[in-house]
Amino acid sequence: MTTEFALIEALRGIARSPGARGLMDDAAVIEIGGEKLVLTLDTLVESVHFLPGDPPASVAWKLVAVNASDISAKGAEPLGCLYSHALGDDEWDSAFLDGLAEACAHFNLPLLGGDTVRMPEGAPRSFSLTALGRTSSAVPSRSGAQPGDRVWVSGTIGDSGLGLAVLTGRAAEAEAGEWLTERYRRPSPDTRLGPALAPWVSAMMDVSDGLLIDGQRMADASAVAISIAADLVPLSAAFRKTAGDDLDARLEAMTAGDDYCLLLAAPPEHTMQIRETAAALDCPVTAIGTVSAGAGLTLFHGDRPISLPERLGYRH
Amino acid sequence: MTTEFALIEALRGIARSPGARGLMDDAAVIEIGGEKLVLTLDTLVESVHFLPGDPPASVAWKLVAVNASDISAKGAEPLGCLYSHALGDDEWDSAFLDGLAEACAHFNLPLLGGDTVRMPEGAPRSFSLTALGRTSSAVPSRSGAQPGDRVWVSGTIGDSGLGLAVLTGRAAEAEAGEWLTERYRRPSPDTRLGPALAPWVSAMMDVSDGLLIDGQRMADASAVAISIAADLVPLSAAFRKTAGDDLDARLEAMTAGDDYCLLLAAPPEHTMQIRETAAALDCPVTAIGTVSAGAGLTLFHGDRPISLPERLGYRH
Repeated sequence: MTTEFALIEALRGIARSPGARGLMDDAAVIEIGGEKLVLTLDTLVESVHFLPGDPPASVAWKLVAVNASDISAKGAEPLGCLYSHALGDDEWDSAFLDGLAEACAHFNLPLLGGDTVRMPEGAPRSFSLTALGRTSSAVPSRSGAQPGDRVWVSGTIGDSGLGLAVLTGRAAEAEAGEWLTERYRRPSPDTRLGPALAPWVSAMMDVSDGLLIDGQRMADASAVAISIAADLVPLSAAFRKTAGDDLDARLEAMTAGDDYCLLLAAPPEHTMQIRETAAALDCPVTAIGTVSAGAGLTLFHGDRPISLPERLGYRH
Repeated sequence: MTTEFALIEALRGIARSPGARGLMDDAAVIEIGGEKLVLTLDTLVESVHFLPGDPPASVAWKLVAVNASDISAKGAEPLGCLYSHALGDDEWDSAFLDGLAEACAHFNLPLLGGDTVRMPEGAPRSFSLTALGRTSSAVPSRSGAQPGDRVWVSGTIGDSGLGLAVLTGRAAEAEAGEWLTERYRRPSPDTRLGPALAPWVSAMMDVSDGLLIDGQRMADASAVAISIAADLVPLSAAFRKTAGDDLDARLEAMTAGDDYCLLLAAPPEHTMQIRETAAALDCPVTAIGTVSAGAGLTLFHGDRPISLPERLGYRH
């Protein structure tokens, strides 16, 4: 069992409860008192999910944001969160709490409880957060995409990944560098969008590890083929200015992680409702592909089929 | 902010939602669809909460058990759990999953989801687990103890702490050593007891950090005085055989952690119901003290008042 993949396979053997959704989804779903409770738990580890030099308030923000994104992607309204705090030094912890308070308020996820733990000397910081959401409607899964559906993505792709590249020196510092690094450090998904779109979608998930890997996961979970048009993938002005928008830049964007955008599949007859719902919230959505019978992910650039890159996204 | 205490004080300023119970309880409580949802999150860190040499299956067992204990102490029936797994080596992880599957089945806490994370080289293992429970009855808190109440504890106290002392060489290996170390490594609270006792109690919590520190927490949260009779505290035959049962041994037992017994306060007129409820489940309960108007914890041995030891329990 040398990879995360193998471990998750083994965990699937344990998590046989229907609420676990075969560990194939962003969140667990259980029914209680006629409502659906949506639950997710994400952990951020220093040097793996954030940089040791990241401002502590941003680390706390990100911890809340990534979980809020999962709740929204399941069409649920936020209920609250619990988290585990690895005690560090005073100043760092205090700044972290400032960011936590700000993020809990911003994402409407009141802090309900958790645990504080002392770590052995020299251990990396790590923080786990469980977020809860509720909905009385059906909870979209990754596995509902149907042949004929249109594939959509919200927001812009690749900004956070490019921000990380700037921070780690893999991309040159640019005029837009600060905006991009903020996208990496303080992702700000609009969590009203998921619940608003949920009635119109066949499948929905958040893009957290990279558009291509998450698109492949949706295709696999839904047992369909998904085709994505690289040239339609939305890029921000800052991304274009810094990295351009040729195919290489687009592949970089589509395989970077930490977007926290929504990826959805919906019947073409819901196109108008999806556009109008997103416009009402001032959240851009873009049609980037199609679902068909078959299996796996394919990529086009204009009319030209493109080989999938070896690495489709971030595995952690 | 140099201590866990100071951090929790700061967190209380953030966790103002009523469901957080002022971070003074074992668990958070939110209402959904006319039911109460009880939520807890506990983290175990290698070299802090478990020993590097502990069998991985026991670490997983303990992770589930400590959270199941919190759910039971709030009178709730288990619903499920999510956890975060720090990837290690194959063999260790595989054995851990065996223990996890066993514990989830034993404590009736189906695995619903979670996260797997890669850790930087050399980082200690750490695992966070969120458990959920439900009840349609009132959820006992730590803060409901009333003057005139009797104080009870379930099970026996100090076994786990003595087991840890055997493992770390602080106590001599004894005939009962293996039974005691198993109490440390694989705590087995009977989680039927909490929901069964809940209707009869004024306050209830689990004893996780030491009977004295947890008794003091109940006194503080309830704004009452609690008096405990050291000579009435129940000790197992294995404990007595290994450590004796004089006052020193009893103080050792009452300040050790990891008991996962229930501590409750109840009106004296519920004495019969408490005894009968516990007897029906074959779980021993013992009256060990009283609640009165005032503040703080006091200790007696027979008729003799005893000074509280400097360290009342385990803080982590």
